[in-house]
Amino acid sequence: MEGKLITLEGIDGSGKSTVARELVSRLRELVPERRWVLTAEPTQGEVGEVLRARLKGQEEEEPVSHMEELFLFMADHADHLKRTIIPSLREGAAVISDRYADSTVAYQGITLRGIVPDPLRWIQSLLKPWNVVPARTLFFAIDPALALERISSREGREKFERLDFLKEVDENFELLVSEEKERFKRIDASLGPDDVSEIAVKAVLDLIR
Amino acid sequence: MEGKLITLEGIDGSGKSTVARELVSRLRELVPERRWVLTAEPTQGEVGEVLRARLKGQEEEEPVSHMEELFLFMADHADHLKRTIIPSLREGAAVISDRYADSTVAYQGITLRGIVPDPLRWIQSLLKPWNVVPARTLFFAIDPALALERISSREGREKFERLDFLKEVDENFELLVSEEKERFKRIDASLGPDDVSEIAVKAVLDLIR
Repeated sequence: MEGKLITLEGIDGSGKSTVARELVSRLRELVPERRWVLTAEPTQGEVGEVLRARLKGQEEEEPVSHMEELFLFMADHADHLKRTIIPSLREGAAVISDRYADSTVAYQGITLRGIVPDPLRWIQSLLKPWNVVPARTLFFAIDPALALERISSREGREKFERLDFLKEVDENFELLVSEEKERFKRIDASLGPDDVSEIAVKAVLDLIR
Repeated sequence: MEGKLITLEGIDGSGKSTVARELVSRLRELVPERRWVLTAEPTQGEVGEVLRARLKGQEEEEPVSHMEELFLFMADHADHLKRTIIPSLREGAAVISDRYADSTVAYQGITLRGIVPDPLRWIQSLLKPWNVVPARTLFFAIDPALALERISSREGREKFERLDFLKEVDENFELLVSEEKERFKRIDASLGPDDVSEIAVKAVLDLIR
């Protein structure tokens, strides 16, 4: 059985992490002959933990902090490929990743403005020689204002969770979607979680079967 | 007083770390009105520690491991700039760094062959938008066979300490030196430590005074 990589992308508050768990649990029931792996970025690995701690920390505005953050995301992504993605795909698993390299392109494509020229394209060029491109990416599309409302009650909000910032990240995601229409499947994430899960399950089955 | 960044580069076994300590202690005596900061890469920070642990670990040959290593070096370098280099330079200190970005260019310029095209230039291009370029770089030139002899008795040798590898890294360093003759000062590191220190002290004083 050929391994398949499916990624879930979207801004914070798009509901993708909730749907991810439901999605994998339903896919395990529907297609039990497949091994289903649910994973996420940042990872739970050593580099991912350093990164998560930083993201919860003080907002730092120096250019080098943003560069450090980018490189930690890239190192964590490489670690993710090495430890989880590549071995699972080799074993023929279907791997579902809650966030992946597109998040780094979309988010750091904003944070690195004014530090490197055309950061979105630059980050894409950094990934190109070694990234594993997903077979399908479900993009959870949602109005940034609604997304922010959903997450406003969360404890320990991260620095990425601000409206002006989320709007810009959302524009980056929409740009990526418009450029790779084959790979991206756009899902209306303003629907209730059951409807969104249903659509997501179908999108994955379309690919797998 | 204007801050100055001076870096020490060379392959393992070139004796640069031993000289670095002696160099800074003599410069503190000779130019006490300056604040002298001795620092190093990989740093002692959180990312540097992750990196050091990896370098002591098993040799891993997967392309993504080499990419991860590169990005950890880059993240650690950004962290170094943020926490040590930039603040020290702003305060007018003379900063001496035992290894710096040129090491990443020279070493990962070898490890990433076959993974990215023209890795040396590629890594330089990654650094260009945000790196702080040293005012002077002392290159400790030594025959790789002699360098390896010097380090052969060390405990816990790192994977970078093999002759064929050191030769290639040495060639990369020599290329960098030949391309920036103003910045690099080539020092014959096969001399005894006292002579090397003496030459290094003079090279720094030439720049500082």
